[in-house]
Amino acid sequence: MSNNNIDVISTLINKIKNITPLTAEAERKIYSIAKIKSLTKSELILKQGHKVKKTFFVIDGCLRSFHVQKDGKEHTLQFAIKDWWISDFIALFNNEIGSLSIESITDSTVIEFNSIKLDEILIKFPELESFQRESLQRHVSSLHKRILDQLRLTALERYRLFQKQYSDIEQYAPNYHIASYLGITQQSLSRIRSESINK
Amino acid sequence: MSNNNIDVISTLINKIKNITPLTAEAERKIYSIAKIKSLTKSELILKQGHKVKKTFFVIDGCLRSFHVQKDGKEHTLQFAIKDWWISDFIALFNNEIGSLSIESITDSTVIEFNSIKLDEILIKFPELESFQRESLQRHVSSLHKRILDQLRLTALERYRLFQKQYSDIEQYAPNYHIASYLGITQQSLSRIRSESINK
Repeated sequence: MSNNNIDVISTLINKIKNITPLTAEAERKIYSIAKIKSLTKSELILKQGHKVKKTFFVIDGCLRSFHVQKDGKEHTLQFAIKDWWISDFIALFNNEIGSLSIESITDSTVIEFNSIKLDEILIKFPELESFQRESLQRHVSSLHKRILDQLRLTALERYRLFQKQYSDIEQYAPNYHIASYLGITQQSLSRIRSESINK
Repeated sequence: MSNNNIDVISTLINKIKNITPLTAEAERKIYSIAKIKSLTKSELILKQGHKVKKTFFVIDGCLRSFHVQKDGKEHTLQFAIKDWWISDFIALFNNEIGSLSIESITDSTVIEFNSIKLDEILIKFPELESFQRESLQRHVSSLHKRILDQLRLTALERYRLFQKQYSDIEQYAPNYHIASYLGITQQSLSRIRSESINK
């Protein structure tokens, strides 16, 4: 493994160590199953309609998960930036065929894990469970927040929140990614943007 | 502790044992912090604007978590039936002041846990972590599904899905609970209901 690759994985290892002490053996095991992927813009790393066996930890860049309807209409479920996990969690946790695709929307670096091997490590090294629990809790909390915001905020308010949470994404994501994440049409997004500037 | 109370808690203990072996000591610890609560309809067990220290496991009945806006408008974030956990997870996992209230919408039985004590048990008995992980994964998956459905389905399709997922709730939940969960007005819900019958 090159020094550069070791550096990339150590980013994640250090995050784990911030939450929980890690034995040298557990650390070696993580290194042994971590695969670094350098992605160019628009690279697809998961394809809707297939079995899902992988989960990704984002080192840098930005990815999105999305669902494509039969008529071609896309819905963006998640954007993932630095320090976030991304996968088709519906498929992964229910052992179903994937309903999502995942693509990089900028040049990105991710660590790819085979989810079965990752689960085996979690079972073998219980000290890792608290890191995993913390990640899952953060995930649950952010999803609850998103649903609540979707219910209580206007489209303009949701757009402003999106700008705050993902400050860079607007520079490189096409309009239809953002509109389909906010659950509005591209026309509404354009209107909101001009309202946002004029207010 | 009465036999009846032991029976209630053993429902949860058995669920844990289905996922992971449990030592007698861990089992005793769970019993020692589990508080059974029999709730009557409309009882409030968590109040928006307060610190959140509790999490609840539903044995029977139905609860809902909701947010009330300054103008009095309510948004239903979650319904919880048998075998589900409910709390203000945004507040709990981020150590924030609660933005949700939780009430029983039927007579219900829940097991109440102090979340700090529950976390201590999870750390002390790592074998419990895999049960917790499984619950959190199921939770993440259901939230992703809900967001995706909100993006891709029509209000009528979402209503039908709701009927399927929560087959009994319609009998006892007022219209505004269901409408505010689906993110539509009560008028839209009435229209959808008549469409649903006529189709």
